[in-house]
Amino acid sequence: MAKLGVGVLGVGRMGKRHAENLRSLIPEARLVAVADVDFEAARRLGDDLEIEHYYDSLESMVDRKDIDAVVIASPSRFHLSAVQTAAAAGKHILCEKPLALTIDGVDDAIAAARSANVILQVGFMRRYDPAYAEAYKRIEEGEIGTPIIFRSISRDREPPPVSFYQSGSGTLFLDSSIHDFDLARWLMKDEVAEVHAFGGTLACPELVQFGELDAGIVNLRFSRGAIGNVESFRQSRYGYDIYTEVVGSKATLRIGYLRQTALTVLSGAGAGHDVVDHFLVRFAEAYLNELRDFVRSVLAASPPRVTGEDARRALAIALAAARSCRDSCTVRVAEGIRVETMHSAS
Amino acid sequence: MAKLGVGVLGVGRMGKRHAENLRSLIPEARLVAVADVDFEAARRLGDDLEIEHYYDSLESMVDRKDIDAVVIASPSRFHLSAVQTAAAAGKHILCEKPLALTIDGVDDAIAAARSANVILQVGFMRRYDPAYAEAYKRIEEGEIGTPIIFRSISRDREPPPVSFYQSGSGTLFLDSSIHDFDLARWLMKDEVAEVHAFGGTLACPELVQFGELDAGIVNLRFSRGAIGNVESFRQSRYGYDIYTEVVGSKATLRIGYLRQTALTVLSGAGAGHDVVDHFLVRFAEAYLNELRDFVRSVLAASPPRVTGEDARRALAIALAAARSCRDSCTVRVAEGIRVETMHSAS
Amino acid sequence: MAKLGVGVLGVGRMGKRHAENLRSLIPEARLVAVADVDFEAARRLGDDLEIEHYYDSLESMVDRKDIDAVVIASPSRFHLSAVQTAAAAGKHILCEKPLALTIDGVDDAIAAARSANVILQVGFMRRYDPAYAEAYKRIEEGEIGTPIIFRSISRDREPPPVSFYQSGSGTLFLDSSIHDFDLARWLMKDEVAEVHAFGGTLACPELVQFGELDAGIVNLRFSRGAIGNVESFRQSRYGYDIYTEVVGSKATLRIGYLRQTALTVLSGAGAGHDVVDHFLVRFAEAYLNELRDFVRSVLAASPPRVTGEDARRALAIALAAARSCRDSCTVRVAEGIRVETMHSAS
Amino acid sequence: MAKLGVGVLGVGRMGKRHAENLRSLIPEARLVAVADVDFEAARRLGDDLEIEHYYDSLESMVDRKDIDAVVIASPSRFHLSAVQTAAAAGKHILCEKPLALTIDGVDDAIAAARSANVILQVGFMRRYDPAYAEAYKRIEEGEIGTPIIFRSISRDREPPPVSFYQSGSGTLFLDSSIHDFDLARWLMKDEVAEVHAFGGTLACPELVQFGELDAGIVNLRFSRGAIGNVESFRQSRYGYDIYTEVVGSKATLRIGYLRQTALTVLSGAGAGHDVVDHFLVRFAEAYLNELRDFVRSVLAASPPRVTGEDARRALAIALAAARSCRDSCTVRVAEGIRVETMHSAS
Repeated sequence: MAKLGVGVLGVGRMGKRHAENLRSLIPEARLVAVADVDFEAARRLGDDLEIEHYYDSLESMVDRKDIDAVVIASPSRFHLSAVQTAAAAGKHILCEKPLALTIDGVDDAIAAARSANVILQVGFMRRYDPAYAEAYKRIEEGEIGTPIIFRSISRDREPPPVSFYQSGSGTLFLDSSIHDFDLARWLMKDEVAEVHAFGGTLACPELVQFGELDAGIVNLRFSRGAIGNVESFRQSRYGYDIYTEVVGSKATLRIGYLRQTALTVLSGAGAGHDVVDHFLVRFAEAYLNELRDFVRSVLAASPPRVTGEDARRALAIALAAARSCRDSCTVRVAEGIRVETMHSAS
Repeated sequence: MAKLGVGVLGVGRMGKRHAENLRSLIPEARLVAVADVDFEAARRLGDDLEIEHYYDSLESMVDRKDIDAVVIASPSRFHLSAVQTAAAAGKHILCEKPLALTIDGVDDAIAAARSANVILQVGFMRRYDPAYAEAYKRIEEGEIGTPIIFRSISRDREPPPVSFYQSGSGTLFLDSSIHDFDLARWLMKDEVAEVHAFGGTLACPELVQFGELDAGIVNLRFSRGAIGNVESFRQSRYGYDIYTEVVGSKATLRIGYLRQTALTVLSGAGAGHDVVDHFLVRFAEAYLNELRDFVRSVLAASPPRVTGEDARRALAIALAAARSCRDSCTVRVAEGIRVETMHSAS
Repeated sequence: MAKLGVGVLGVGRMGKRHAENLRSLIPEARLVAVADVDFEAARRLGDDLEIEHYYDSLESMVDRKDIDAVVIASPSRFHLSAVQTAAAAGKHILCEKPLALTIDGVDDAIAAARSANVILQVGFMRRYDPAYAEAYKRIEEGEIGTPIIFRSISRDREPPPVSFYQSGSGTLFLDSSIHDFDLARWLMKDEVAEVHAFGGTLACPELVQFGELDAGIVNLRFSRGAIGNVESFRQSRYGYDIYTEVVGSKATLRIGYLRQTALTVLSGAGAGHDVVDHFLVRFAEAYLNELRDFVRSVLAASPPRVTGEDARRALAIALAAARSCRDSCTVRVAEGIRVETMHSAS
Repeated sequence: MAKLGVGVLGVGRMGKRHAENLRSLIPEARLVAVADVDFEAARRLGDDLEIEHYYDSLESMVDRKDIDAVVIASPSRFHLSAVQTAAAAGKHILCEKPLALTIDGVDDAIAAARSANVILQVGFMRRYDPAYAEAYKRIEEGEIGTPIIFRSISRDREPPPVSFYQSGSGTLFLDSSIHDFDLARWLMKDEVAEVHAFGGTLACPELVQFGELDAGIVNLRFSRGAIGNVESFRQSRYGYDIYTEVVGSKATLRIGYLRQTALTVLSGAGAGHDVVDHFLVRFAEAYLNELRDFVRSVLAASPPRVTGEDARRALAIALAAARSCRDSCTVRVAEGIRVETMHSAS
């Protein structure tokens, strides 16, 4: 079987992980090249992974005929143009979330992929985590009855570096909560109709200069009446804590854990254990499964499991949450889309 | 030492528990009498507890000189008049929550106790649970730094009986979430400034006839900027699940557990254990501590730990949540008080 | 219904707990008197519990006609003579474990109760703990198939006071492991045929003067082939940790927990919680259930659930373990009985 | 840097895992070839991993100059001759446990490696598990004080296939408990002086034909007085459960967990979750770390962390346990070595 040739754009921690997974753990793929505006960083990763090609731009990388697909892991605000470039070159695309920062942008990304007839998959990797996948399966099979309440919490141990905010990637609802909004739609099998958000810069004073929140809490109302809440927090201190709950009319599912290792210490101070500290630890398997699914989808010419439309709807919720937080009002998600579209058009 | 003579009004499950605790477990108190409009129920409980006096009304019970204090555990809508009756008779009062159903009502109750110069304590028993008390102590000592996020969940296994709703006691935010609102103020050491709520009758169709919610989710903004969320649900099916989290700038506290007994079953189906099923199990110790504290406060003529003012503020949040849920808007809590006061005056 | 008049012998922590339970929580019983060689201690407890009668000996207490039953909670080496005294006076007996320190002693105790035609129940209170009781029920119902492996661990947070050892109550296998030996017989529904033990004075040098062990580990072979292990340790430092496991051919049961309260603290140091610290906390409900069962058995003239024969068999295992530990050999339990009987006869 | 050329002997599940790890996850190594008496199996694995060389014997594989080291994952009874062959060919060796089935055999293996001046590492991979490694570090740093009690449990979900027993690999104490015996020595920082074992064929009647045990329980006495217990069981049904505890004079460490995924299901039946089901899941990271350490040790010409002497001492305990179980007596480990050596010489 011919292998899928893949190039990775962006060699930050996320791009690096994708490149490593492609290099070693996905036999159906061949990592051909990596690209980054920081050419030295691209070269270093290329050397580490023993691949021969590295570039300082996506444009030059996609010229290669032996690249069939690209993984986009550049800063969020460059996602849209990268998708357009890759699509124009006829490459299949796995793009990190968010696909774009506005609804118009997402629409443009979807249109670009569609007219180029390439697969466009979006990086909501939690759907590929074994526990979340099992939860979805059980909901699908009716085990919990009708979903009634959705809760999801995403807490980072420490906030991303300041450079992350300088790159414009940091908006809390668009960068972090968007994972939970995607889970909300996916696990509840329903769309979010209305949101309400409170937020603040409560723990990380260095974010004030960027006007960024470090804590947000979003109430959700689903179109068939179910309710929910999403919390995002940038600095838990104790660990990387991802926790989701779907309360159904017959049973309830919880997805989440704290422990990193199996060690418990018992002393006069009580019982203690460590806590998972990083998303690349918690979701190591999910990232691998995601990439594997992308490669297989492309090779089989089957549609991806997480589409541009999924990205659009999650973004619409995130934008509505941002507006609700700003204006202290309930925001209909459809309204959020229109309003934000207008904003982005102005 | 002279014992405090106590009468209990209401012999439902809550009044029964208070009476049992007074009868056996609080040496400084003497259970003198119980009263209930259902005189036969009062007599049965009196016989079981081997006390000699039972009444069909608070009015007749408070005539007794050997009663120094009353515990009010009648349906919520009768709390105010019971407080007024007891205060008028010069009896100290421990009243179940909510103290009244309107802010005006709470003000009247507080005024009645004040003019009679009797102690008025309100039944937010969670403050007396060892885990909550320990959490408060640690927050007080600065262990978690500045409180940033508050979360609290209250789920009943099964909804209260229909008779509970018929008695008018059932409003979700006033009857159930009010415990979490009290915890919010107490543990965050701050007042709730704004709320936003979504709710629905999603699991218990029999509540539709009463216009009552079985699920509600309330976003909170505290006056110093912290944020929070409170969820209440009437029918979890799996157990009585009370869970609170206080996220601070230095550490995070969680209060809650699932297990009722220490048994774990391991089989081909995985690992499983039981779940606490009832509030009288989860908070057995809290109810006892609460009553003990009340008795000692009265005997020492010291102010109670949970006051009428606490009841007023928790109720204001609950009323604001109810209005937010009805009108789908953010509600300032001060505003909620004024508006609802006006409503109740009309 | 006439109440059962009960006297309690011994007002140490265990006798005190029994007296408190009888005084307040068992409506079918009336605590008539307490006795202790330390008359002042008996008087203090009597005053605290508001009973009028206290004695400095069992002999004088059992003269009372209004005492129908006695609870024996004196030091272990006085159990036998107390049982004989109580039986001679025609009183029903609940005796703390061990019933006696030799097989001959147990036989004498059983004979005394039998000839006096009084009920003799022995204080293996774990059988009354809700989790252990549920485990037994599930085994009885066949849920785990054939029991194959038994494990049980008993760890005290801190060793008993030196006075406990001075009183001769302290032998590890006879005082502590004996609970696990009783669980072994009861939960495995089989007799222990052979034991092998290692032990040492490893943590508490102050026990060396008494020739007592603080740590012991006992291999078990049951008569139908199943195997097991019992560990006892006097000084865990972290808490009171009682843990039992029954591995069956179809499923496995675990009984045990660490947490005392529902509080979890999450910080940069990880996640931590407290640990149950004392047997009167862990087994509060078991002690109450045990006493209630005793009172009801006497009132109903039905045989007790934990008999003198149970005490005899558990003691035989404990004596065999002690001998195995001393002689470093495998000991057949029947052999252990005979040998020890000979010893005690010499 | 030149890469270490490695060949893998045996392509069962363990050899396959080593080969996969070498192929993809250890950049300092190059998987050159695999060998198995089942040549077709070797070829299939070679094809899957895209390597070009596969053999039907170690003899032919070690002829390759580009192979510097071999990983031995053949059935246990062939370990010794494989070590001798590899050593004779001057290849460094990572050998699965047990290194040999007799003390003489281990001595021969050690001698072979020593005279060939090659590194001989033994596959006690648990030492490389992050939780066990952290436990060791804390003990080394004195955090738990003096180790007093050691406990370790190894339970398979289902027994190995009958072919495993036919190959002679199956002896419970030598194949399974030996991991725990190694942990005992390593974590307690002491040698095992005496053992006592009970065992039986209690759950898997198909093992009777091989005279093999499926359950064993081994008491340990360490040379400095500490005590311990090791349990091994072949068929837990509920999962792969590895649990170790080191009780110290100041604190206690526990290593072990049950959960495979982060999903909890809450229903009327209680709370439930899955259990880790296989050693390649539980110890995935350990196997990788072990291999990485081996490759680095060879490249750096530094001694391995787990030596032939470690294998010898663990085997001595296992053989002593086997003899204790057979003869129902306490066995000194030194004595066990001698006796078994005599047996194997006869």
